[in-house]
Amino acid sequence: MSEEPNTNYQKVTDRIVEELQAIVGERYVIYGDADALEAYSHDETGGKQWAHPPEVAVRPETTEQIAAIMKLANRERIPVTPRGAGSGLSGGAVPIYGGIVLLSDRMNRILEIDTDNLMITVEPAVITSEINEQVEPLRLFYAGYPMSMETCSIGGNVAENAGGGKAIKYGVTSRYVLGLEVVTPTGDIVQLGGKLIKDVTGYNLVQLMVGSEGTLGIFTKITLKLLPLPQAQVDLLCLFSSPEQAIGAVTTIITACGIIPTAVEFIDRQSFEASCKYLNETLPYQDAGAMLLITLDGHSPDQVQNDYEAVGEKCMELGATEVYVADNPTTSERIWRIRRNIPEAYNLITQRQSGEDIVVPPASIPQLVAKIRRLAEKYDVLIPTYGHAGDGNLHSRLVSKPEWSDEYWNELLPRLQTELYQLTAQLGGRISGEHGIGHKRKKYLAHVVSQEYITMLRAIKRALDPNNILNPGKIFDMEPSSTESIT
Amino acid sequence: MSEEPNTNYQKVTDRIVEELQAIVGERYVIYGDADALEAYSHDETGGKQWAHPPEVAVRPETTEQIAAIMKLANRERIPVTPRGAGSGLSGGAVPIYGGIVLLSDRMNRILEIDTDNLMITVEPAVITSEINEQVEPLRLFYAGYPMSMETCSIGGNVAENAGGGKAIKYGVTSRYVLGLEVVTPTGDIVQLGGKLIKDVTGYNLVQLMVGSEGTLGIFTKITLKLLPLPQAQVDLLCLFSSPEQAIGAVTTIITACGIIPTAVEFIDRQSFEASCKYLNETLPYQDAGAMLLITLDGHSPDQVQNDYEAVGEKCMELGATEVYVADNPTTSERIWRIRRNIPEAYNLITQRQSGEDIVVPPASIPQLVAKIRRLAEKYDVLIPTYGHAGDGNLHSRLVSKPEWSDEYWNELLPRLQTELYQLTAQLGGRISGEHGIGHKRKKYLAHVVSQEYITMLRAIKRALDPNNILNPGKIFDMEPSSTESIT
Repeated sequence: MSEEPNTNYQKVTDRIVEELQAIVGERYVIYGDADALEAYSHDETGGKQWAHPPEVAVRPETTEQIAAIMKLANRERIPVTPRGAGSGLSGGAVPIYGGIVLLSDRMNRILEIDTDNLMITVEPAVITSEINEQVEPLRLFYAGYPMSMETCSIGGNVAENAGGGKAIKYGVTSRYVLGLEVVTPTGDIVQLGGKLIKDVTGYNLVQLMVGSEGTLGIFTKITLKLLPLPQAQVDLLCLFSSPEQAIGAVTTIITACGIIPTAVEFIDRQSFEASCKYLNETLPYQDAGAMLLITLDGHSPDQVQNDYEAVGEKCMELGATEVYVADNPTTSERIWRIRRNIPEAYNLITQRQSGEDIVVPPASIPQLVAKIRRLAEKYDVLIPTYGHAGDGNLHSRLVSKPEWSDEYWNELLPRLQTELYQLTAQLGGRISGEHGIGHKRKKYLAHVVSQEYITMLRAIKRALDPNNILNPGKIFDMEPSSTESIT
Repeated sequence: MSEEPNTNYQKVTDRIVEELQAIVGERYVIYGDADALEAYSHDETGGKQWAHPPEVAVRPETTEQIAAIMKLANRERIPVTPRGAGSGLSGGAVPIYGGIVLLSDRMNRILEIDTDNLMITVEPAVITSEINEQVEPLRLFYAGYPMSMETCSIGGNVAENAGGGKAIKYGVTSRYVLGLEVVTPTGDIVQLGGKLIKDVTGYNLVQLMVGSEGTLGIFTKITLKLLPLPQAQVDLLCLFSSPEQAIGAVTTIITACGIIPTAVEFIDRQSFEASCKYLNETLPYQDAGAMLLITLDGHSPDQVQNDYEAVGEKCMELGATEVYVADNPTTSERIWRIRRNIPEAYNLITQRQSGEDIVVPPASIPQLVAKIRRLAEKYDVLIPTYGHAGDGNLHSRLVSKPEWSDEYWNELLPRLQTELYQLTAQLGGRISGEHGIGHKRKKYLAHVVSQEYITMLRAIKRALDPNNILNPGKIFDMEPSSTESIT
């Protein structure tokens, strides 16, 4: 942690632990058990350099308990890091200054399904896919679709403004968050928004909170908008002989057909093979150079059929070698499972890698892919690439060769990241589309945004968290540190 | 202005005027001409009590000129009020402390239509309907649809987070704002967001700016998302014998049909008659008690036909006496023109009225209408009501009887507003869905939000505008004033 700026946080003492026990109950405080606390020292961000254990972990059950913890933490100057399912990919839930980790796991209830208003109110630890399991029988659905939906929690989705596969048509998490109960960094409880489709009664603090990575408030109740469940869905798996051909087709499909697909995923050959191997899956398309997974949904089966025929024909015109149609849930899930498990597959292969989350204007994706290929050639490194091509968000993975030493890789990786982020910025892009800046990308923030913008971020953080208690050291440091400049 | 808190603003002197002339050019500074400045003393909010002239008005042409003006204003402690088309309905563009009015009218260019990314970049003074005129030949459309679209400007739409008729399906202005060039209250120029569908690189300051009513930044370039133009649209005019029947049908139509209409407008008999009279329109449905104007659009004519038949049948089941279908642009525009001109029609009838903008959870609209009727009976006052029933946003108008004196009305109106806002809050609602708080509703803000929330608003304002220079006295006062408590 030597690169962190100095802080004046206090240590967690036995007295503090007793106070925490008085707030949440003795059995819900984890303290003095290094093995147990180690579980909260990391998220799913690869690389041990991001890990740091908390001094104590607490498991509150109510909003009022969280408010009491925040007041205590402010009084005693102890940092507090909120943690959801721990599935984050930027180190956002890692307590890099120690202190208190606030676990949400006991707040996992679905509080209300409001079928008249088409809304659901949940606690933060509800697993994202559970929302759809609950509302599907009511012919409703929640349109957030992060790839980790079976393990991530909705509180984390809101904190990171999770994107996922359906953002091109349905937008990201933020579009569905209508109301939040929030504990502020200083321990107040505020209601933001509500069951309202429109609301301009004051600044849009709901949307300021969404994506704030746990640095501006702790969400204790979340009201989400639901939509009528589409009555039809079809997936197309379109094979192309090269990545350039596949990616080059994306914008044309949308503009020429006048159809916004539900999802347009790009998967290069390396990524597809890695995931198939991980899953023992034997789909017969491994000889393609790259593929697009295109989903179309709608209110009527006829409409969706018209749409997929138009899109499929356009893909063939644009050089696809095959277009497979998956028009039933089993086949559809089989394909999407391969897509969703690419990160897991790579995590098993090596720890010496970095999952990236760059985003550019959608029409710049072909240029981005070409630039990434040149970067890979320059450093003789593997950069398998997949992701949400339809909305300009690609997950390139920077992967070490097996024969390289840790030392060589640890020196090379920051150079690769820097160049990747710079070429992204040159295309009008940013370094994170949906995973967040967190701890992992903090030192690169200044590559793609102006100093004036960072000054605004700091001013807002200081306004709402004057003691810098809530999840400090994420996104940006409160004072410029030496690592914030371009390396 | 006696109810305003004390401020320490300086007056505009000849020296300041010379500096402003040096920045924007002599001919673009309006000073010493009371008649000319009077034009900038009000917006479309009825009631002379909201009017206040600026000391000087300036017409910058570039972002850099605006930045220079803000730096000057901070140095000299002179308030600056940005003004778009002046069509606002909450006094947001009124310079209540005098000072400088910043006119956007020279910044009215469409900078780029990006058909590959489906985005458009414009300057703030572009008239909203012009965007659609420009992109429609490209089979694209901008989904923002404020009722004043033929006169309002896009900068004002962003500042107020304009809603309008199509929010139920397409969302409000905020959903389409991807990028902003902003001059901060202290005169810095920052780029927020960009041509990006996803972006979590720092807090969502784009969405903090949208709806900030000109208090957190001045927008100089706006990048908006476009959608493929729907290939089919149909309007249904559904007549009901009573307002209760009409409004009661809204939620059922959506939940039972599983269709999100493009628009669901409620118009009571008084409002419809007033607008028809104003327009010399003679549609033959004036004997209905109330009506719903339901729009459906989509990619294929067949789909839209299926949808409108399902919705029309459901309306008849729910007690509609007639359902008229407008399936061509001429008839459609004829009906929507009546809807859009209701406010203008009332403005001609009397100045003693107040257009309201309350919003509740959509399913609570029938209760809201019943409560409004009881309020009208209690005070023997007319409260014609119309608006965006599908998204819970109603425009009740509090209208004086012709025989009442100004004194009686001026005493009654705040009581009516207070009770209207309280009954809205009891239903989980807020006092503005799309018009803004501005000056007009500021003293009522504390009726519907908590003191902790107002404290957060003040903290953010102070963080970004430490001298309280940009559009001060809107939404909230920086320090509690006596009028902020419930009257």
